[in-house]
Amino acid sequence: MMDVQLTLDHLLARAVDLFPDREIVTKTPSGDLHRYTYAEMAARAAQLAGALDDLGLETGDRVATVAANNYRHLELYFGPACSGRSMHMCNMRLPDEHFQFIVEDAGDRVLFVDPAFVEKVEANADELDSVEQYVVLADEVPETSLEPVVAYEDLLEGQPTSYDWPDLDEERECGMCYTSGTTGKPKGVVYTHRGISLHSLMSGHVDTNRLGQADTVLPVVPMFHANGWGLPYAATFVGAKQVLPGVHTDPASVAELIDDEAVTVSAAVPTIWLEMANYLDDHPEMDISNVDRLTVGGSAPPESLIRRYDEQYDAPIIQGWGMTETSPLGTLSTLREELREADPETRYRYRAKAGMPVPGMQVRIRDDDGEEVPRDGESMGELQVRAPWVVDEYHQRPDATRESFTEDGYLRTGDIATMDEYGYVDVVDRTKDVIKSGGEWISSVELENELMAHEAVAEATVIAVDHEKWQERPMACVVLREGHDATTEDLNDHLGERFPSWWLPDSYEFVEAIPRTSTGKFDKMTLRRQYDDVRLGPE
Amino acid sequence: MMDVQLTLDHLLARAVDLFPDREIVTKTPSGDLHRYTYAEMAARAAQLAGALDDLGLETGDRVATVAANNYRHLELYFGPACSGRSMHMCNMRLPDEHFQFIVEDAGDRVLFVDPAFVEKVEANADELDSVEQYVVLADEVPETSLEPVVAYEDLLEGQPTSYDWPDLDEERECGMCYTSGTTGKPKGVVYTHRGISLHSLMSGHVDTNRLGQADTVLPVVPMFHANGWGLPYAATFVGAKQVLPGVHTDPASVAELIDDEAVTVSAAVPTIWLEMANYLDDHPEMDISNVDRLTVGGSAPPESLIRRYDEQYDAPIIQGWGMTETSPLGTLSTLREELREADPETRYRYRAKAGMPVPGMQVRIRDDDGEEVPRDGESMGELQVRAPWVVDEYHQRPDATRESFTEDGYLRTGDIATMDEYGYVDVVDRTKDVIKSGGEWISSVELENELMAHEAVAEATVIAVDHEKWQERPMACVVLREGHDATTEDLNDHLGERFPSWWLPDSYEFVEAIPRTSTGKFDKMTLRRQYDDVRLGPE
Repeated sequence: MMDVQLTLDHLLARAVDLFPDREIVTKTPSGDLHRYTYAEMAARAAQLAGALDDLGLETGDRVATVAANNYRHLELYFGPACSGRSMHMCNMRLPDEHFQFIVEDAGDRVLFVDPAFVEKVEANADELDSVEQYVVLADEVPETSLEPVVAYEDLLEGQPTSYDWPDLDEERECGMCYTSGTTGKPKGVVYTHRGISLHSLMSGHVDTNRLGQADTVLPVVPMFHANGWGLPYAATFVGAKQVLPGVHTDPASVAELIDDEAVTVSAAVPTIWLEMANYLDDHPEMDISNVDRLTVGGSAPPESLIRRYDEQYDAPIIQGWGMTETSPLGTLSTLREELREADPETRYRYRAKAGMPVPGMQVRIRDDDGEEVPRDGESMGELQVRAPWVVDEYHQRPDATRESFTEDGYLRTGDIATMDEYGYVDVVDRTKDVIKSGGEWISSVELENELMAHEAVAEATVIAVDHEKWQERPMACVVLREGHDATTEDLNDHLGERFPSWWLPDSYEFVEAIPRTSTGKFDKMTLRRQYDDVRLGPE
Repeated sequence: MMDVQLTLDHLLARAVDLFPDREIVTKTPSGDLHRYTYAEMAARAAQLAGALDDLGLETGDRVATVAANNYRHLELYFGPACSGRSMHMCNMRLPDEHFQFIVEDAGDRVLFVDPAFVEKVEANADELDSVEQYVVLADEVPETSLEPVVAYEDLLEGQPTSYDWPDLDEERECGMCYTSGTTGKPKGVVYTHRGISLHSLMSGHVDTNRLGQADTVLPVVPMFHANGWGLPYAATFVGAKQVLPGVHTDPASVAELIDDEAVTVSAAVPTIWLEMANYLDDHPEMDISNVDRLTVGGSAPPESLIRRYDEQYDAPIIQGWGMTETSPLGTLSTLREELREADPETRYRYRAKAGMPVPGMQVRIRDDDGEEVPRDGESMGELQVRAPWVVDEYHQRPDATRESFTEDGYLRTGDIATMDEYGYVDVVDRTKDVIKSGGEWISSVELENELMAHEAVAEATVIAVDHEKWQERPMACVVLREGHDATTEDLNDHLGERFPSWWLPDSYEFVEAIPRTSTGKFDKMTLRRQYDDVRLGPE
C-alpha cells in the first residue's frame, strides 16, 4: 500500500479541495460576527507557518495558546502542526502556579493570547522563562506589559498564503494539553498526527458523533480542553460549517448563534445544556429546531435533562465519555438497534449511560484484583481503555506514568464504571469520589443525578465524609430552585425509591451555590476540604 | 500515543465483544438458510487458524479461495489474516490460463473451494503446482479428482475455538486479489492490515457508505472481487447483520432475501439492479421497503435506473467508483448539502456521477501533459488517486508498476474522468474505450447511458471503430426491448438532444445480446475484435 502518513495537512487539504467556500463563523469580543471560508482559513494557517519560520521555530518546537473558540485559534490548530511544530492549548482558568508550570514544562517558545486573557498572562509573565515572543490574537496590540509582543495580524502580514507542508511522520507530535487534575500538578499529554487523524475519521463514523459535511457545528466546549473534543479537526476534515462562540458562552449568546446560523450539532458539559434549557423556557422565540443532536461530556447529564431536550426540543442528547488522555472520545451513548423499539424507560436508561466504545476503542472494567467484572450493569470496577488515540505516558512524569498504565498497555482511567450486557459503560464515579461505606461502594454521581431529578433541586453534589463505624458515608450539598422547598426527609424519600437505604446520605447541607473547577465541574475537592472536620456516626 | 497497530484482529474482536449475538445468514447451495452469530464465526475463524498451523503454514504464506458469498468464506476473510497469513480471493470466472497463472503467481499453498466450483479447480489442478492441500467448503468431500483433499468441517473439527492472535505489524499483508484485466495477464494486488483497517473505518463514515451497527448488509458483489467492496470487513467491524446469498444471485433469490431478512443496504453492479427492477415490476408482492440505500459500482448506472429506484422503491442508489487496486472505495455519489434543495434534475445529474472522494482519498484529474484539468465538469483527463488503501505496486510486475504510477506517488487509474465545481468525479470512459475522433474525445459510456435511457433499448454499448478521416468513430451495439422497435434515426435523434452531432454513432448494430466479461461488465474487447475489420468514412 502507498506510504500515505496520517498527518493533519491531509485534513486541511481536503477542506480546501472539496469545501473551499464553506463558512467558519466567529462571534468576536465586540459581538460582531466574523465570517470567512476554509480557503481563507487555510491560507492564513499557511501564513502562520511562515511567520513561525521567521521567528526561528524549529521542527518539534511548541507554541502555547491562551484563547477561546475563535477562527484564529482554529488557524493555530493547523499552522504549527502541519509545519512540524506543536500547539499547546492552555487552560487560562488554571491557578497561576499551575499555569506557570504548564508553559514552562512544555517549553513553549511563543505564546498566543486572546485580548480577553492578556491580563492573566501578564500576571504570570515573570515566570514564563521559555516564552520568547507574545502574540496577541487581534488586529492591534492592546496596552500591555508583555514583551516582546506583536499583534497576530501584523505577524501574518506579508507572509505567503501557501506553504509547502513538509512530509511528516504520523507519529510526530502535533499538539499538547495538560490534565486539569484536582490534586497535584497538571500532567502533560502529547497528541500525535496519527492519533488525531484516526480520531477525526472515527468522529464521522455513523456509530459515533457522525460528524459530516451536512453539519453546522458549534463547539461550546473550549478549544483549550482536550482538542475541543476533536471537533475543530473533525469538522475541518469533513468540511462542516463551523460556528465559534468566542467568549460568549452564556445561554443567550449560544441560543442566538444556534438559531441564526442553523446549527445542527453542538457540544458542551451538562451544566451548559441545563442553563440553556432554563433560558429557552423563558425565551420561546428562540428556534433551535435545526439541532439534530447535542453531544455532552465532562460529566454525566441527568436522565431528566435528556428527556427534557427530547420532549421540548426534539434535540437528542448523546452523552459521551472521554479524557484529555484519550483525545478525547472513548464511548458514546448512541442507541443500539436492539433498543430502538424498546419502551421509553428502557431507552432512557441506556441513553443516560456513558455509552458504547467507539470503533477503534478497546474498553474493559477490572476490579481491584485485576479481574474483569461481570457485564451485568451493576458490578463496579476501574474503567481501562486502549486505542491508537490514547496516550501511553505523561510528559516528563515517569512517576505518574508508572501509576496510570497497566502492564499490558491499558490506561487506568481512575473512573469507576459498570458495563451491561449490551456493552454500555456507565461511569458511576471517580475512583477518588466513590464513597467506600463499610467495604461497599456508593456512587456519588448516581445520587447526584437522582437528586437533580427532584423538582425542588437545582444542583446537587455528594461527597464522602468520615464516619466512625462505616469509614465513609455520603453527604449531600444541595442548591434548591427558586420558589421551591424540600426537606432532608423529602429528598431521602425520593432517593429511597431507587437506591437501598444504606446509600442514602446521612447528612444534607443546603447551600447557595456549589463551587466549580476550572473546567466547570463541581469542585468536590474544595467541598471535601470544607467539610473535612465533619465526623459522623456511629449511629 | 499507544502503539496499537491497525490490524484485522481488532475488527473481529469488536464484533465478538459488542455484538456476539448478531446474525450472519447464508443461503446454502440447497436453498436452506444457515444462521449463526459473530461469536460462532469468530470461534470458527480461530479453529481455521489452528488448522493452518497444523498444515504447517508459516507467517506470510497464502491460501486461495474459490468461493461465493457464504459464511465459510467470511471465516476465511479473518482466520488466515489474523494469524499472519494472507487470503488470496480468486475469481473462478477467469479463463483457465489466467486462473492457473494467479494461483501460481501468488504461490497459494492451500486452496479452499466451494462444491459448486470444484469442477473448475479440477480442470486446472495439474497446473497448480504450489497447492499442497485442497479443502472443499462443505461438510463432506464430494466425488473429486483433487488431492490431497479434506472437507472444511473435518479440517476445523477438534481445533480450539480460541486463538492467541499474534501481534502483527499493520503493514503486513492480509489479502490478495488480481485485477481481471481485459488485456494481458492479471496483475496481483496485495492488501495490508493497515489499508483494510482504514478502509473499514472509512466505510462507516457518514459521508460515505455509512455502514453501521443498525444495518443489515447483503453483498451481491462477489467476495472474490476486491474484498467484496470491503463489506465483509466493515460489516464485521460495526457488528452489522450480514446476509450472504451464496450462489443465488438471481433477482428472485436476492429479492426474497432482502424481503425476508429486512436488508437495509445492498451492493452490486448496475446490471443486477436493472434485472431486479424488472423482476420487482412483475412481483409486486416482494417488499424491499427496509432498504435504505443500494451501493452500485463496477460501472456507472444509468440515471434512469437511479430515478426508477427512487420513485418506485424509495431506495436511493449511491454509486461509487473504485478498483481492485483501491481496496476498492475511491469516490461515492452522496449528495452535498448545497444540492439538497436543488431541483430534481440537478440532483439526479450529480447523483449519476461517480461522486466525491471519500475521506482519506486524494483525487486529481490530469491531461496528457500532466496538468490538472479545469473543474468544469467537462474537461477530461486521467483520474489519478492516492490513499493509504491504494497499492503502490503490482505483485512481481515491475513493468506494470512503472507504467501505472506517477513519480509523485499517484495511481494512474486508466479511467478518463471530469471533475465539477463541487468535486464530483464523473468517469466518462476507460482510457482504452474513449473514442478519439479527430483529436477530440467522445465518451462511450455517456452515449451508452443515454441510449439505455431510450424506452426501446434494453442494453447498449458503444465502441470505437477505425475511420479513414477521423481515426476513430463511435459504433453502437444495441439490444432492443421485447415488443419495442427503434431505428438508427430514432436513436440518433434521441442522442442529439443531449450531445453534439459529431458525438453521434456513425453506425449501429442491432444484436441479440452483448457479450460480458467475467466480472459482468460489457466485454468491449471481444466486440472490438468482432468489428475489427469495420472501416468507416471518409463521408
